[in-house]
Amino acid sequence: MSNFELFFSTKPSFPGFERNIELMTSFCEKYKRHNIALITSGGTTIPLEKNTVRFIDNFSAGTRGSASAEYLLKHGYAVIFLHRNKSLKPFSRHFEDYDFLDMLEEDRSLNGAIKVKSENIKNLLPVLVDYKQAKQEGRLLLITFTSLSEYLWYLREACFCLNTCGKLAMLYLAAAVSDFYIPQDELPTHKIQSDKGAPSISLHLVPKMLAPLVTHWVPEAFVVSFKLETDESLLLTKSKAALQKYHHKIVVGNLLHTRKTHVVIVTNDHSYDIKLTEEEQKSGIEIESKIIDDLITRHMKFAQ
Amino acid sequence: MSNFELFFSTKPSFPGFERNIELMTSFCEKYKRHNIALITSGGTTIPLEKNTVRFIDNFSAGTRGSASAEYLLKHGYAVIFLHRNKSLKPFSRHFEDYDFLDMLEEDRSLNGAIKVKSENIKNLLPVLVDYKQAKQEGRLLLITFTSLSEYLWYLREACFCLNTCGKLAMLYLAAAVSDFYIPQDELPTHKIQSDKGAPSISLHLVPKMLAPLVTHWVPEAFVVSFKLETDESLLLTKSKAALQKYHHKIVVGNLLHTRKTHVVIVTNDHSYDIKLTEEEQKSGIEIESKIIDDLITRHMKFAQ
Repeated sequence: MSNFELFFSTKPSFPGFERNIELMTSFCEKYKRHNIALITSGGTTIPLEKNTVRFIDNFSAGTRGSASAEYLLKHGYAVIFLHRNKSLKPFSRHFEDYDFLDMLEEDRSLNGAIKVKSENIKNLLPVLVDYKQAKQEGRLLLITFTSLSEYLWYLREACFCLNTCGKLAMLYLAAAVSDFYIPQDELPTHKIQSDKGAPSISLHLVPKMLAPLVTHWVPEAFVVSFKLETDESLLLTKSKAALQKYHHKIVVGNLLHTRKTHVVIVTNDHSYDIKLTEEEQKSGIEIESKIIDDLITRHMKFAQ
Repeated sequence: MSNFELFFSTKPSFPGFERNIELMTSFCEKYKRHNIALITSGGTTIPLEKNTVRFIDNFSAGTRGSASAEYLLKHGYAVIFLHRNKSLKPFSRHFEDYDFLDMLEEDRSLNGAIKVKSENIKNLLPVLVDYKQAKQEGRLLLITFTSLSEYLWYLREACFCLNTCGKLAMLYLAAAVSDFYIPQDELPTHKIQSDKGAPSISLHLVPKMLAPLVTHWVPEAFVVSFKLETDESLLLTKSKAALQKYHHKIVVGNLLHTRKTHVVIVTNDHSYDIKLTEEEQKSGIEIESKIIDDLITRHMKFAQ
């Protein structure tokens, strides 16, 4: 049995797991002759205790995934948004902290009514309209995960569902997935006690899922994965290596500190940059709108 | 030099650090003859790399701290809310994900206006009114941290400011602070690479801050700290030990799985439970309202 088969040999017991599989299955059934995308977004956690107080996390607010979901929806795609619990979500991502409460005021002309202040309508209205439309049409399905294990199980199940959509399915794997984990049988049950001294934590490599993903689960789909590095000198080499190893259609390479203005699109025969000019940055254009434009063109050609 | 003095011997360079200290200083100056509380809330992170992609985190949504802040504000306290970035905040904590967008609708009677749906006004209005009042009076100061190091520096600076308030200051230390960390000089600069095999992570014990907190920084203040355990058999013993070790006024003990309905208040001479009855739970009463009622009574007696 290979590494990844071993990982999937024990059925999990996440709350809501069966229900979420039903939701994904009927969503893919409804949209199987439609352009459809699975977006993964946010970081995964590695619990350090069975009763989890501490965990190792991967940095990711979910900006890339949640913005990209909006642009795919705008282009008519149906979207399964598989995201880390509490990470950014399409539409609601535009508002944080006290933004909403600050936008509201009591309407003194109407007893007890609450309205949005006139100066906030311009920014809020387009988001509200797009959100209501996606919701009304049922073109956005939200599924949440927290741990690496939940992520991997949902990813596999989503692939099984999407496989019925053939080439019309795009996988946009923007989640920041841990390379390491601690197997269940090595986890302590209770919170690690500090009076026993500082512990050492031995991590294990996560079974590589990205190769079986293509060959076993969604052989026909248009698979796009992301490679995040902090060291520029490694980026292109590692992105090309990932493309060859996993047989995906495209790897999007990006550096932690410039990821909001610059990515490298790596395909089998060439690679090119997508950048935001200073002007585009000033006018509030997001790099995800350009990435999605580019990928949709490639996806359409691929699916012909 | 002791452990904690060594930790504070190098000045940090967090963005906004100086500005936040100014804000805390003038806040404490304004409210120095007033009941004032420092609430810490949310978990701390331990970076595993200098260019941080991965980190160890402590579980904490910030529910306890953010709810308690509301009740302290309601009782007239001025509140410094020192919280983990993106954790729950007073008032906004009542709404998540798409709650706000779902509450809104275009007002067709007024061209382009947006209003809150009538069925949502009942829940939203009291929160909005309390929020606007706290904001208008300037009685709530929000300071955010992410890493353990930021937390410790802000905690110390906040204590220096609060020390001018003497016995009128309450410290309500509800943040979930890591017991372990990795010193700066042992951190790799770049993202740990998985092709070099799975790493082992050696943690160090965090210098204990809770004892110097009382004796050096805020000797007069009313200090309340929290003890979270997952193992019931350890809870009372560890809470009592913490109280004796740190010379705080009160330790609030709680178990991970029952923390929303049951805490143990441990003082120097006795301990007692605060619980929510099933009826109270059904009617939406939060245990923080009872904890804060209890602590305010004790604080007032203490400060007389």
